[in-house]
Amino acid sequence: MRAARWHGREDIRVEDVPEPELRPGHVAIDIAWCGICGSDLHEYLEGPIFIPPAGHPHPVSGECAPLTMGHEFSGTVAALGDGVTDLTVGESVVVEPYVIADDVDTGPGQSYQLSKDMNFIGLGGHGGGLSEKVVVARRWVHPVGDIPLDQAALIEPLAVGYHAYVRSGAGAGDVALIGGAGPIGLLLAAVLTAEGLTVVVTEVSAARKAKALETGVAAHVLDPTEGSVGDRVRELTGGRGADVAFECSSVDAVLDTLLDGVRPTGVVVNVSIWGHKPAVDLQKLVLKEIDLRGTIAYAGDHPATIELVRSGKVDLAPFITARIDLGDLVEQGFETLVHRNDTQVKILVHP
Amino acid sequence: MRAARWHGREDIRVEDVPEPELRPGHVAIDIAWCGICGSDLHEYLEGPIFIPPAGHPHPVSGECAPLTMGHEFSGTVAALGDGVTDLTVGESVVVEPYVIADDVDTGPGQSYQLSKDMNFIGLGGHGGGLSEKVVVARRWVHPVGDIPLDQAALIEPLAVGYHAYVRSGAGAGDVALIGGAGPIGLLLAAVLTAEGLTVVVTEVSAARKAKALETGVAAHVLDPTEGSVGDRVRELTGGRGADVAFECSSVDAVLDTLLDGVRPTGVVVNVSIWGHKPAVDLQKLVLKEIDLRGTIAYAGDHPATIELVRSGKVDLAPFITARIDLGDLVEQGFETLVHRNDTQVKILVHP
Repeated sequence: MRAARWHGREDIRVEDVPEPELRPGHVAIDIAWCGICGSDLHEYLEGPIFIPPAGHPHPVSGECAPLTMGHEFSGTVAALGDGVTDLTVGESVVVEPYVIADDVDTGPGQSYQLSKDMNFIGLGGHGGGLSEKVVVARRWVHPVGDIPLDQAALIEPLAVGYHAYVRSGAGAGDVALIGGAGPIGLLLAAVLTAEGLTVVVTEVSAARKAKALETGVAAHVLDPTEGSVGDRVRELTGGRGADVAFECSSVDAVLDTLLDGVRPTGVVVNVSIWGHKPAVDLQKLVLKEIDLRGTIAYAGDHPATIELVRSGKVDLAPFITARIDLGDLVEQGFETLVHRNDTQVKILVHP
Repeated sequence: MRAARWHGREDIRVEDVPEPELRPGHVAIDIAWCGICGSDLHEYLEGPIFIPPAGHPHPVSGECAPLTMGHEFSGTVAALGDGVTDLTVGESVVVEPYVIADDVDTGPGQSYQLSKDMNFIGLGGHGGGLSEKVVVARRWVHPVGDIPLDQAALIEPLAVGYHAYVRSGAGAGDVALIGGAGPIGLLLAAVLTAEGLTVVVTEVSAARKAKALETGVAAHVLDPTEGSVGDRVRELTGGRGADVAFECSSVDAVLDTLLDGVRPTGVVVNVSIWGHKPAVDLQKLVLKEIDLRGTIAYAGDHPATIELVRSGKVDLAPFITARIDLGDLVEQGFETLVHRNDTQVKILVHP
């Protein structure tokens, strides 16, 4: 079958690999669509980051580069391994793409996303969504009912947003400030608006500002080049400030804006991944007794995330901005994101 | 009466000022002892920070430099203003040294330490403990029973530690890592040990390491120059890491050590005041889903703090390392802290 494999920086090759074999307790899935994630782009430009380099096999998967990529994917059940009785062949599913040791408890309330040697399907081994087929353990498979399979490929990044929302402790009626309207910022905004929060986005890109307003996921979009975001958030909130803020940009100045924009005892959730150590104005954290919280991926968040989409509270269709064939992955996928990133939200790849 | 007043950087003068007048709802207090705080030292070397400069009166107190200093003080009630009926002349008291607008609610559960224009007695006006007498509003006066007045002067910094402990959400049985064994680090350690936590301190100064062990407030003292603090904390905790950590040093590398030393989903409380924006390794915050929490001063913490001392759970006597006369404040007080800071925990001044 065809699979896109990471061989090195700026060296992703679509090549022929053997089909994965079905095993007991596992599910074979025919891939429908797979999104390209910001972390895939980081691996392309600056990797290996999550990918175990050649000669250094991952302790759980036992695999190393070259490895199949893609962790934001949907598909249909092709076959069920022995012991799997609660899914049906042909059913639409998404995968919670973890590579985690078998003995880690993934039950309710467990922080298995923080377990030792955690990695992702499509980065750390166990195949990936940028191929024709995967075989994954039953526990990572989530049925999506009648959600269209193209939209279902966005469940994974939406679950990242949902987990960040849960981490924030915020709820209906709160005002949320989001720093950065890239794919994660926009999908997080969709979750927050669906959950009854008022969303204010700060963003400089004209295309992203327009997308945040067009899709209805932001009530207000502020441009930090046009004046103090903190002052304008306070104007919007009767002098108080945002209840919660989410850093989705990996830019020092944006984080600073969020520390400025939240109210005393407010919460700032850091959703972004940092390639450098930002300078953080901790005096703002101190003098307002802010909580700055880290969040990574998801744990137990897929069912609620899927329900947001299935119920129609979140419409993922407007965030799909391109559809390409696996054979065009590098030229029309990665190179587009490298050179014209802000024109796209989510590029979907069909194998 | 004699009072130490801040006129400018490295210009604190002990001079004669009029006695403050008693007013309705207020209490006149004869000062017994006043400690020199790290923030007093910052005002001496780098001020004005909290002090309103000459020509810029504070919006609540209406006062500006030159101003009387000292906010860590104890004394005895000298006289009661009209309407104050629940204190007795001669009673031992401490002061929660706030300059906060009259209409701010300071009742239970209120975060009045974060109110607009908050400042401190001894920095922002309303007199100070580095003088013979103060007159303060009844709501800031806390009786201390039979606690010796020299020890009572340390209630204020102990309340800073108590508030940081409350902010952490930690409790008995937890393992706490404290970065820095200066006065606040040591007093915080005393609170945590009294509350049933196991305290691990990281510190480089030999004098401070010795003090942390001699006083019994730390179970373990680690020197970061002798190997990875994170690894050693994990050894001490069965591979897990500290449940909570407290930054008390204002040093970037120490904060980094704490992010390394806490367990996944652990809490790091920033107790220190920062004169610069530290470089923070937010990837550690992300990948362990750490909560980094700011804390400032205290709010509603004095009764519980006083009870810790009154009940004997915290012994403040070992933290008093010098007693000087107000006339020797600069030479024997500030200049000692400037040049031989780590030989001292708390210098008490008698007016």
